[in-house]
Amino acid sequence: MFESAEIGHQIGRKAYKEAEAKLRQALLEAQYQLLESKQRAVIVLVNGVDGAGKGETVNLFNEWMDPRHIRTEAFATPDASGEDAPLGHPAMWRFWQVLPPKGHVGILFGNWYTDPIVQHALGHDKESRFDERLTEVRAFERMLSAEGVCLVKLWFHMTKEGVAKRFKALEKDPKTAWRVTAHDWERLKHYDRFVPISAKALRKTSTGEAPWLVIDGSDPGYRAITAGQYLLDNLLRALQPFAPLGIGHAAPPPPPPLDGRSLLATQDYTRTLARSTYEDQLERLQGRLNKLLRAPEWKRRSLVLVFEGMDAAGKGSTIRRITQALDARHYRVIPVAAPNEAERAQPYLWRFWRYLPRWGHTTMFDRSWYGRVLVERVEGFCSEPDWTRAYDEINAFEEQLTQAGTVVVKFWLSITQEEQLKRFEARQNTPHKVHKITPDDWRNRDKWPLYAHAVDDMMDRTSTDIAPWHIVASDDKRWSRIEVLRLLCERVEAALDTKG
Amino acid sequence: MFESAEIGHQIGRKAYKEAEAKLRQALLEAQYQLLESKQRAVIVLVNGVDGAGKGETVNLFNEWMDPRHIRTEAFATPDASGEDAPLGHPAMWRFWQVLPPKGHVGILFGNWYTDPIVQHALGHDKESRFDERLTEVRAFERMLSAEGVCLVKLWFHMTKEGVAKRFKALEKDPKTAWRVTAHDWERLKHYDRFVPISAKALRKTSTGEAPWLVIDGSDPGYRAITAGQYLLDNLLRALQPFAPLGIGHAAPPPPPPLDGRSLLATQDYTRTLARSTYEDQLERLQGRLNKLLRAPEWKRRSLVLVFEGMDAAGKGSTIRRITQALDARHYRVIPVAAPNEAERAQPYLWRFWRYLPRWGHTTMFDRSWYGRVLVERVEGFCSEPDWTRAYDEINAFEEQLTQAGTVVVKFWLSITQEEQLKRFEARQNTPHKVHKITPDDWRNRDKWPLYAHAVDDMMDRTSTDIAPWHIVASDDKRWSRIEVLRLLCERVEAALDTKG
Repeated sequence: MFESAEIGHQIGRKAYKEAEAKLRQALLEAQYQLLESKQRAVIVLVNGVDGAGKGETVNLFNEWMDPRHIRTEAFATPDASGEDAPLGHPAMWRFWQVLPPKGHVGILFGNWYTDPIVQHALGHDKESRFDERLTEVRAFERMLSAEGVCLVKLWFHMTKEGVAKRFKALEKDPKTAWRVTAHDWERLKHYDRFVPISAKALRKTSTGEAPWLVIDGSDPGYRAITAGQYLLDNLLRALQPFAPLGIGHAAPPPPPPLDGRSLLATQDYTRTLARSTYEDQLERLQGRLNKLLRAPEWKRRSLVLVFEGMDAAGKGSTIRRITQALDARHYRVIPVAAPNEAERAQPYLWRFWRYLPRWGHTTMFDRSWYGRVLVERVEGFCSEPDWTRAYDEINAFEEQLTQAGTVVVKFWLSITQEEQLKRFEARQNTPHKVHKITPDDWRNRDKWPLYAHAVDDMMDRTSTDIAPWHIVASDDKRWSRIEVLRLLCERVEAALDTKG
Repeated sequence: MFESAEIGHQIGRKAYKEAEAKLRQALLEAQYQLLESKQRAVIVLVNGVDGAGKGETVNLFNEWMDPRHIRTEAFATPDASGEDAPLGHPAMWRFWQVLPPKGHVGILFGNWYTDPIVQHALGHDKESRFDERLTEVRAFERMLSAEGVCLVKLWFHMTKEGVAKRFKALEKDPKTAWRVTAHDWERLKHYDRFVPISAKALRKTSTGEAPWLVIDGSDPGYRAITAGQYLLDNLLRALQPFAPLGIGHAAPPPPPPLDGRSLLATQDYTRTLARSTYEDQLERLQGRLNKLLRAPEWKRRSLVLVFEGMDAAGKGSTIRRITQALDARHYRVIPVAAPNEAERAQPYLWRFWRYLPRWGHTTMFDRSWYGRVLVERVEGFCSEPDWTRAYDEINAFEEQLTQAGTVVVKFWLSITQEEQLKRFEARQNTPHKVHKITPDDWRNRDKWPLYAHAVDDMMDRTSTDIAPWHIVASDDKRWSRIEVLRLLCERVEAALDTKG
């Protein structure tokens, strides 16, 4: 959920100054237009890790726009402070009291996500109650969207180490030392409990019309411009005519990263493996996998593998290294291309449901349902509302798989642009491989940054507690294959440990 | 939930024959147009009480339309029959296999509602698991709607007595005796367990884009034409252009009852109360209510009363009989008129949230949020998608109230058209009452059948397990006031018994 927010996004001081000047003016203009149009309200939810810049961002928004028309509200959890206690009112009552009217912007700092996450993390609410509350939140936000409210959900993220480093830096300087309290350090201890629970909350409530935007909080400039730009996108969206078609228009798509940094560009591509080591490890891992999948517990479990990656990343050859370890009666490899006519006449996920493995079986998807948020998104093969709601539908799909006992393991085989070029050229110069390279491959290559951006969004929204993504640097094929097999064995072992 | 389906709707043989001939042709035409347009698929869910005509309706649909383009599927619950067991696939897997492609009609007889209801009724699934499954169903249907699938959800209802009577009639005739098995009688024993669980399922899954239509199953002709006509409405809706705006267009509104019968017309208006009995009972009930609301448990409970009814039904005077029993510091009466400008700038329910009582307090709404599905619907003050989604939002709202410890008691004070005329005339002829009658009142009176229809739909969709409606015949003011007070005391007593 937070992958792309942990790669240290940043922009320089000069770039910040320039972007800020333009952004401020655009925000102010959009705010006044919204006020005049009176068509829709905008609600900004500010959540995330403590120390990742939530308060600073709220302050900036109030500085950049006209604060007279912004209603900023901070809510503590009812337990923490008697004053905010709802006195027997439903939990949502407090928020109904501060909804901004049409034309206005409301910033809710501490909101309907805070208490459910806190109560569950502290062990006061069981998982089933937490789920129930998230369901209520979904219904509430759905109603708001249908009423024309534009929801801007910002999640500021930082690694635990990043937060600790920031606290220490603040403490060192006498001028800022006061900003870090014992309470802050105390709360940091709970980081590891809060983050997975938050990830679940994000997964369950990132819908097509009200998705979460995860923002790397480590660089103040990057974080401020990213948040401000996304707010601007939403204000502009809120100025467009709104038709009550049962539900609000889709939210704007996630913005491209300001600094152009991407998860794919920040992998370590230098690791290699000698042939002899590779062959030795390959054989051992294949044996381990084979044995694991013959465990009696596997009679009531199944395995779904997803392979995605740029063209020529080595998906096919990696899959072959896995199938070598399996009994042919128990697996299927499904290559996924453009949908045929019968598939286009069905809901998007239909064609994948057809190939789900029964207990004891494995299906390997060579490309998958993620095409919706990769190629279909980038090439415009589906509409924006279609791919923006796909993240949520995919998460629901994978949750159902998981609940049925299926282990879902997703690999992104990641190669650099240089390595891809090498492989393309090799294919063109090798007679028996020349059929593997098409003009489409070259065209896709030109869209590399768009794909990289789509991958970041995909990781943020679909690398979940129940079905995480594994990004495997694959410039070195041997290293990559061993890594995939190793990760796969580990995931299967973990699954056998927890249930079966 | 099933109120309007228990008043014995029926149409005569001749009316049936005429309607059937027209309907068949229209259905067939619409079916072919759908097939040609290939824009959307239509899925009909057939559910309800056993013996209320589910199978017969499915047969009729296949007879009326071209069965080559209808895919009819019957699903048993996985437990009941080994054949259909999903072999480790997610529960939804079976249904994905039979989704009709665009242009086609699928009839699912036994579907994604069957197993959750059965498993919970048999005690295999706990309430929290049941809720979870309903949440999954909502997400699934939402995806289908967003994909352009038009969902037609039919619930056939009959009273337990009605079913028993039908079984006996079938058994008596040697030609039909085979249709009733020991298993049918066995299942009828569970009627009282199934119905409230079904009601909850309907409440949780009746959304703006995929609402349930509850159909009185007691008269074969009425039930067939009602179901067929609603299917036709949906087919015609499915022919309209579909824009992927995040969610499918709203479903067509519920059709008016064929026989013109309404809940309001079938109340018993003959009961009256002598003045002396009335005064005696009034005093006793007011005392009982006062005592109940001073119970210490009430310190963590609250009370919301909703009064709705046609003009001059006696809402105000009834409320006064209740307030006489209460401490003025602990209640508020909120008269609800057309929303003002500030209220129109907020989501619809906003203005009611403002007046929710805190613990120990009571709010009485003289008209309420139900205006959305009554006057706003009938007068066209809001769009059709707005009022069709309101049922679901209102149920979610009342569920939150209930969870916060609020007892929600809703009264429809029901008068006949004749009685209303008498009261209007009395108002016009009484100087100190003449201000109470406006041209609007006369205009509303002309729309009586539209309001009666809206009331039936409101009862079907919002008289729920957590917040049932009480229809009180109010032609006799004294009888009505006593009845309201009596029901109110009972509801408060029941609440004190269960929790506090």
